[in-house]
This record gives sequence, structure tokens and C-alpha cells, in this order.
Amino acid sequence: MRAAVYHGSRKLSIEDVPEPSPDAGQVKVRVSRNGICGTDLHEYYDGPIFVPEDPHPLTGRSMPVVLGHEFSGVVTETGKGVTDVREGDHVVIEPIYRCGTCRACKAGHYNVCAVIGFHGLMADGGMAEYTVVPENQVHRLPDRIPLELGALVEPLAVAHHAAVMGEVNGDSTALVYGAGPIGIGLWFALRGMGLTEIDVIEPSETRRASIEALGARTLDPTAQDVPALIAERMNGVGVDAAFDAAGVAPAVESALQCLGERRPLVSVAIYDKPIPTPLIQLVLRERRIQGTICYTHEDYQAVIRLMAEGHYDTTGWVDTVPLTAVLDEGFEALRQGRRMKVLVDPTR
Amino acid sequence: MRAAVYHGSRKLSIEDVPEPSPDAGQVKVRVSRNGICGTDLHEYYDGPIFVPEDPHPLTGRSMPVVLGHEFSGVVTETGKGVTDVREGDHVVIEPIYRCGTCRACKAGHYNVCAVIGFHGLMADGGMAEYTVVPENQVHRLPDRIPLELGALVEPLAVAHHAAVMGEVNGDSTALVYGAGPIGIGLWFALRGMGLTEIDVIEPSETRRASIEALGARTLDPTAQDVPALIAERMNGVGVDAAFDAAGVAPAVESALQCLGERRPLVSVAIYDKPIPTPLIQLVLRERRIQGTICYTHEDYQAVIRLMAEGHYDTTGWVDTVPLTAVLDEGFEALRQGRRMKVLVDPTR
Ligand SMILES: [Zn+2]
Ligand SMILES: [Zn+2]
Ligand SMILES: [Zn+2]
Ligand SMILES: [Zn+2]
Repeated sequence: MRAAVYHGSRKLSIEDVPEPSPDAGQVKVRVSRNGICGTDLHEYYDGPIFVPEDPHPLTGRSMPVVLGHEFSGVVTETGKGVTDVREGDHVVIEPIYRCGTCRACKAGHYNVCAVIGFHGLMADGGMAEYTVVPENQVHRLPDRIPLELGALVEPLAVAHHAAVMGEVNGDSTALVYGAGPIGIGLWFALRGMGLTEIDVIEPSETRRASIEALGARTLDPTAQDVPALIAERMNGVGVDAAFDAAGVAPAVESALQCLGERRPLVSVAIYDKPIPTPLIQLVLRERRIQGTICYTHEDYQAVIRLMAEGHYDTTGWVDTVPLTAVLDEGFEALRQGRRMKVLVDPTR
Repeated sequence: MRAAVYHGSRKLSIEDVPEPSPDAGQVKVRVSRNGICGTDLHEYYDGPIFVPEDPHPLTGRSMPVVLGHEFSGVVTETGKGVTDVREGDHVVIEPIYRCGTCRACKAGHYNVCAVIGFHGLMADGGMAEYTVVPENQVHRLPDRIPLELGALVEPLAVAHHAAVMGEVNGDSTALVYGAGPIGIGLWFALRGMGLTEIDVIEPSETRRASIEALGARTLDPTAQDVPALIAERMNGVGVDAAFDAAGVAPAVESALQCLGERRPLVSVAIYDKPIPTPLIQLVLRERRIQGTICYTHEDYQAVIRLMAEGHYDTTGWVDTVPLTAVLDEGFEALRQGRRMKVLVDPTR
């Protein structure tokens, strides 16, 4: 079968590899769509970062691996003992391998498992015609949700988890910094939680237009003094939550000024260097900065439920390209900002 | 009566001022001891910061004011309608004026009241023979607690409030960065909550010796790789809470590396500029940085209860000086690091 195999920095090749078959407890999936995300870009341009050079403690696998951790597909075969899914089921994969025994796992927070692994980084992933996953990574996707949309459950679950960390409710006010895929996912998640008072702060005109087309209200931080505007609009009472999906110092600084007392700035960005942070803004109003990463199965279930209710819309921000064009029309297009979110079709 | 009156930057004079008398709902206190804290130093050397130049909305007062917000004393007179205390009672003052109607006040978090004021900054305070406070600022001090110790309830309540923000229990592990008065208060508060596994990280040999004499375990960050040492001792599992009472970049960086997943770094320092903060350390393990300021009446009650149990010890870190020597032996001595904590005796 055809697969995108990662051999190290800037070495990703489309190869013919043996089709995998499921052992006991495993599920074989014919991949429908597989998304490319920032982690994949980092791995390709600056890696190996997550892809292990020595066998991973949970998967036993090391480089080379087939990339791809955001995917949907159809079950084609199940190993012995698999009871939750069967051939023909539409599924999305929650790609986390967890130890089950560390403090985080025992507390149910396996997204911060001490030895966490990911399907598509520490095991052969979804940029292939087929892949084989453990049964506990499989979520059934209702038939009325298109598989193209299902491939987005993973990044949307990242955003949903971040939204939950904001401790908001339907009456809350929120600011989302950054209108990339995670920012869009945050906006949808917050709307799904009932919020109506959300502003998305994004300097790029293209990205603002893109999220506005989905129904969002936006602010341009290069043209408007966001903290002054929020202070005036809210009569000095700060917002209930802010979300940093931009990962830059001006976003952190602006968000902390806009936040109400005892409220969180939720960080869901990959900061590549320390950010000059006005910690005094935390102290004076007992604010906090809360980091967040990945998701657990509750986030998957919540996103799938919202999808079933027709809550998510891919118009204008998601493109599909053939696996054979993954480098030029996927990785390069994303890096250059020509596309915002790319799904790979491994059958082409 | 004699009082230390603040007239602006580097203008604090010992003056004869009229003795105040209590209106309805007010309590007149003969001050026993009044502590000098970092806020007072800031006000003296770099102010006015908190002392208002226009009348404060809650107190109606502006500069000049008598400084002093950390004090104990004896009630000498009560205004009409005062029922909670009477002449002769030993008391400590919780110096916060609150509006009672803002979102923070309504939620019980009047320490972040939108228009907060402080006795001794926005009204004439405790660096005087007498002062007059509203009844709701008065806490009775059991007779078996010396008034000298009582004057420390305010800074110890700041530290207690920070300790509570750490969400710890008796089984928790904790790191305290900085062994100044707030660091010492944190160590006592955490011990009072039952913690036995606490390390205090402090570069100054004098300050380490001082807190060690109280029974604390210390680490010298200039001689030891604290994150490596903690990682080895705890086998990679991070500590349950860290507290920054140092306010410097190396403390923030070290603390974030030592913290366990989903745990807080509690910030209780006055950062005078943005700190380069590795926010990625928050994201990867879902850690948070939680700001904290002041206290509410629960912290006062908790500290007074712990004091009554003989829990606090002033040996080696608290000095008393006469009001007439407040500048040389108080402010200057603190600024030069010749003393750690100074109480002023207004009768001398
Ligand atoms: Zn991803
Ligand atoms: Zn684990
Ligand atoms: Zn103070
Ligand atoms: Zn208030």
C-alpha cells in the first residue's frame, strides 16, 4: 500500500509498504482523510522531535514511521477480542498511547501521561491507505457525519479541551487570539458551550475574513487598541476567559490586560521561545495562565456530538489534496500560508 | 500625637498631628507595633504609587497620609454602633477598604475589589500613636498572642492566602522560591497546613541561614541544579506546588521545570518588569501560573488560629525600632538588606 514515510528532517517519501494486519485487540482502518498539523510541520522541517530514534516504551517503534495522527476512516478488519467496532463502521482515531499507571493516567489525565505516545509519530499513522490501531483509540462516527469532517475531530478536540479549561458558561465573555485552525476550533467549541460574546483577535486580514465568513466577530490588533476597546465596552470589567492560540508576546500581553479578576488565559500554542510576560498582571488581579495540551475521550465525544448537531463548518478553511501531492500542496502550502488546513486523501 | 506622614517620594516626616477620634462604626486603636513592607518602600523611594493624589472613592483621602498598614494595638474608644470590640481589646487590623458592590466583592473576593483602598495608604495608618479604623477591619487578637507577633498577621496573611492558592494538602510536596518575609510566611503557612516536604530555594546565604534556624530545609540555586535534583529525588514526578516569592526570572524558570503536571506556580511577588517565561512548560504538562494578592478575613482568622497554637516564630528575622528612627533603621536598613523585617514602635 502507499504511505508517507518519515525518515528525519525534510525526508518524507511516498513509498510502497506492506499492508498492516490487526493483532488481538487491534482494529484495521482504511483511511479516508488525514489532516496535516503544526506538529507534522515541525517534525518535517525541524525534526525529529516527537518521532523517536530509539524504540518508544509504549509502541516499541522508532524512525522511520508513517506520519499522520488526525484521521478518519472505515473499519476493514478487527483483531481477536475487539467488540466495540466492526467491519464497515465509520471511525475517528484518538491517537494517544498512554501507560495507564503514572500519576496523570491514574487521575484520568492521560493527555499528560509521563510516557505518552502518538499514533502517527511513535507508530505508523494515517498518511497511508491503511493503518492499525488499538481498540481504545477508536471512536465511532455517526454515519450522518461526513468522513472529511471526521478527520478534523482531533484538532477540534484540542480546541475543545482548551475551551473547557477556560471554565466558561453560556453567559461568559471570551477573547480568542489567533484565527488559525485551533482558533477556529476554539470559536466553534465556545459557541457549542453556548457563548455568544466572543471576539477573535487576528492581525491577518485573510484569516479574519475566513473566520468572519463562519459567523465570528473579529478585531484587528494592528488597527485597534484591544485592551482599551474591551475596557470601554465592558466598563472596566474584564472578560471571563482569554485563549492564546497565537503564541506571540503581543497576544499574551493584550490578553492579560483584557482579563477579569481571577480568570484564566488559556495557552494552547507551541511557544518556541520564552515570552516576556507581565506576571504583575497575574498578581494584581489574581489572574492565571493555564497551559493545555491535547484532549481526552470526553473531548472527542463532545466534538462528535456537536458535529452530529451540524455545529461545525469547513467552508473556506479546509482543503483536500492527494497523498502524492502531500509535500508541495500540503507541507509547503501550509508553511507558506497558502492554505490554512489540509487533509490528505491517501487513495489518490 | 506623633505620626510618620507621607508627602511624596522620599518625603516622610515625623510630625505632631491631631489625635483622631472615632465616628459611628469606627474603632480607635492605640498602635502597639506597625510593620514596614515592600509596598511602603516602593511608596517612599518611587512613589506616590498607591497613595492617591485625588480623593480616594472609598476613603475620600489623598496625600499627605500617615503610612502603615501592618499593625496591632489596643482599642481605646469605640464609635456609636460598634458591638464587636470594646475598650481594652487587643486587635489586629485587616486594612482593606472595599466597595462591596463590584463583581469581585459580590463573589467574596474583596482582595481584588475594583476600587480597593488600604488603611495606611488611602487613609491615615498605623505609623502613629493612634489610628481610627472601620469596625469591619478589626480582628480580635487572643491575649496569649503578643502584640509584637500580632503586627505580623498582615504579611503572614498574604503568605497564607498564597499557600491556599497552591491547592495543597498534608501529603503535598512544595518549593518556595525566596526566603524574605513572604517566603518565611509561606513556609510557616504550608507547615500549618500539614506539609512536611518543603524546600526553600534562596541564593543568599544569610537568608538561608535565617530560615534554616526556623527549621526549614533549603537549597542554594547558585550551587545546585535544582530541577535536576528534584527530578532525581522524585523520580521524574514533579512537585505539587511551587511559590514564587522572589520575583526573578531564574526562579520562574526553575519552578516551572520542577512542577508536576496540572499543578500551579503561585506568584506572590511584585514583578517590576515582564519576565521571560517559558510558557511551553505550561502547555506541555498543563501547568499554570496563578497570581495572588493580599488576603481575605479567612486568611486573617487562619493565621491568628495558627499563632494561638504557637506555630509562628519571629526569632532572627524581625526587629523593632522606634518611630523616630523609622527612616534610618527602618526604610534604609530594609533597602540595604541590613534587616529583613522591621516593626515600628510608635510610643518611642
Ligand atoms: Zn496534530
Ligand atoms: Zn501514563
Ligand atoms: Zn504590606
Ligand atoms: Zn469591590
